[in-house]
Amino acid sequence: MGLRSALTDMFGIEHPIVLAPMGGVAGGRLAAAVAEGGGLGMIGGGRGNADWLRRECALAASGTEKPWGIGLLSWAINQDILAAAIAWRPAAIMLSFGDPAPFAPSIHDAAIPLVVQVTSMAEARRALDVGADVVVAQGTEAGGHGGGRSTLPFVPAVVDVAGAVPVLAAGGIADGRGLAAALVLGAAGAVIGTRFEATTEALLDADEATAILAAGASDTILGRVADVAADAGWPAVYPARTLRNAFTETWQNREDELGDDDEALSEFRAGVDRADMDYVPVWAGEAVDLITELHGASALVGRISAEALDALDSVPREHH
Amino acid sequence: MGLRSALTDMFGIEHPIVLAPMGGVAGGRLAAAVAEGGGLGMIGGGRGNADWLRRECALAASGTEKPWGIGLLSWAINQDILAAAIAWRPAAIMLSFGDPAPFAPSIHDAAIPLVVQVTSMAEARRALDVGADVVVAQGTEAGGHGGGRSTLPFVPAVVDVAGAVPVLAAGGIADGRGLAAALVLGAAGAVIGTRFEATTEALLDADEATAILAAGASDTILGRVADVAADAGWPAVYPARTLRNAFTETWQNREDELGDDDEALSEFRAGVDRADMDYVPVWAGEAVDLITELHGASALVGRISAEALDALDSVPREHH
Ligand SMILES: Cc1cc2nc3c(=O)[nH]c(=O)nc-3n(C[C@H](O)[C@H](O)[C@H](O)COP(=O)(O)O)c2cc1C
Ligand SMILES: Cc1cc2nc3c(=O)[nH]c(=O)nc-3n(C[C@H](O)[C@H](O)[C@H](O)COP(=O)(O)O)c2cc1C
Repeated sequence: MGLRSALTDMFGIEHPIVLAPMGGVAGGRLAAAVAEGGGLGMIGGGRGNADWLRRECALAASGTEKPWGIGLLSWAINQDILAAAIAWRPAAIMLSFGDPAPFAPSIHDAAIPLVVQVTSMAEARRALDVGADVVVAQGTEAGGHGGGRSTLPFVPAVVDVAGAVPVLAAGGIADGRGLAAALVLGAAGAVIGTRFEATTEALLDADEATAILAAGASDTILGRVADVAADAGWPAVYPARTLRNAFTETWQNREDELGDDDEALSEFRAGVDRADMDYVPVWAGEAVDLITELHGASALVGRISAEALDALDSVPREHH
Repeated sequence: MGLRSALTDMFGIEHPIVLAPMGGVAGGRLAAAVAEGGGLGMIGGGRGNADWLRRECALAASGTEKPWGIGLLSWAINQDILAAAIAWRPAAIMLSFGDPAPFAPSIHDAAIPLVVQVTSMAEARRALDVGADVVVAQGTEAGGHGGGRSTLPFVPAVVDVAGAVPVLAAGGIADGRGLAAALVLGAAGAVIGTRFEATTEALLDADEATAILAAGASDTILGRVADVAADAGWPAVYPARTLRNAFTETWQNREDELGDDDEALSEFRAGVDRADMDYVPVWAGEAVDLITELHGASALVGRISAEALDALDSVPREHH
């Protein structure tokens, strides 16, 4: 038995699972492992650093014959970066956070499926307007950057406006129960990030993976401290969910002050440089509650899909 | 075909749907209508105003022979109020928001099933410690007061610690897709509030019902403005999700200032007195995106359950 959906049909993959294009964390090895496991691998291209992208795409290409794509940040990229991504002929390009309109035409022209991740109904409508082939409805429980909606009510609302365009659910999905929920909400599959951070193939330091395994959802916080401290240029409308640490506890809700405090900023940089977990930002979502073991990513894909089938079959229907 | 679960078994009801005990909004007529429709009706007893509770319980008792319960706010009630509720021999008592420990023993002694609504893992553990018979895991997308978790990842995390105790999902559920999601996440059913506000039996002014039908989720806001303005005594850890209006837009994130501003406070009271929607607080959740029509509550219960069966059956499984 397998789960079939518009997503598995579109990409010719076995399971309706997409690796979230986690910037710097989802490299070529992880993308290839997810692809080998029957999901859609994605490389977290972020702002599109050329050297990083070249290395990781080469790793993915040499690691699998199966489909993998590239994710980029709409607010941060330009046409040159996009052209470099297109040149790899990825199976999909995902644009997140910001206006996809300037980049949609080149992707369409290249005949590469365009996936747009959205955090509000307004962004969902915009994605459909620019001709997204897949829309990802992301809830605020997600790891990393995002908006203010919650996945469970957001997904069906996006499905209702998307017509024939497949919708994927992102945010808070770490096991088969979450994938099954995505499917019954009307999504064609799930985009999964935090769960794949705790895999042997993720580009994450051991301390960070350990912190994710140990954390509960109440150890996560949504805010702008890490972005302001790193002077990352992120639009303020997209706060990020990270693990709490001494630095976020000190500066949460005081981001403006932090931006002007040279001492605090250099303290942050020094802390990050020495890999001090009181400072290192670890992007992670509420799904950490459900994550207690490190897994290999390939096997994890099949396991989540099998669990989803079990979850669907475990709801008792009674004939009257 | 029907959906069966630990919830339907425990209460001998037809559908795994519980009316949220919406304070002042879920009166006896609505509770009876939901019970007649095959769900578990609940009266929103709130702080337990004696006259209101007497009237609404009498209405429920005369409106149905089927089971209905009473919801009360743990932080606001005392033993006398609880005794008055117990005297109605409700099918269940739901305690929400605050420590259930002082009230659990009398409910157990009366052999009435104790339902405890929780907003964090710490509260979930506390509910299990005091012997809750059912735990409701409520997400921040819910209408009315609540905490900071999102329903989709919170429900399975509570299921994992609840052992044999049935868990219900609350927050963001307005149709069969949401109910189906609750069930595959491992819940025994759903507690539904906002959707039942837009029914003919809800105790809501026409202007308020109209506002709910017109609103989208981005028209809701989570905060403390209405509680501070009404001097309601709510613990600050439980902000409320309401529709935005001119008053919330002015005072959001300035609640401390508002509490000291006598002019603004009397402006608020005057606005509410003349039913001016720029001031009237309307508690409503992100599910408003999915709510566009007023329905009768009895028929709505069966419709949501039937839609959930469809949603479960609509996920294609393929034999290899
Ligand atoms: C470590 C990390 C980094 C992320 N970086 C990006 C990114 O660069 N671009 C992007 O579109 N989404 C990024 N996301 C968000 C994911 O695309 C996705 O929405 C999210 O991981 C889904 O929620 P989950 O973490 O609960 O599975 C990131 C998420 C995490 C956890
Ligand atoms: C108008 C309104 C009033 C509410 N009042 C109460 C209350 O007095 N006690 C309580 O336990 N929950 C109350 N709630 C919260 C519900 O119990 C429940 O968690 C919530 O409605 C579920 O989310 P939903 O609104 O998205 O269905 C209220 C909700 C609404 C919408």
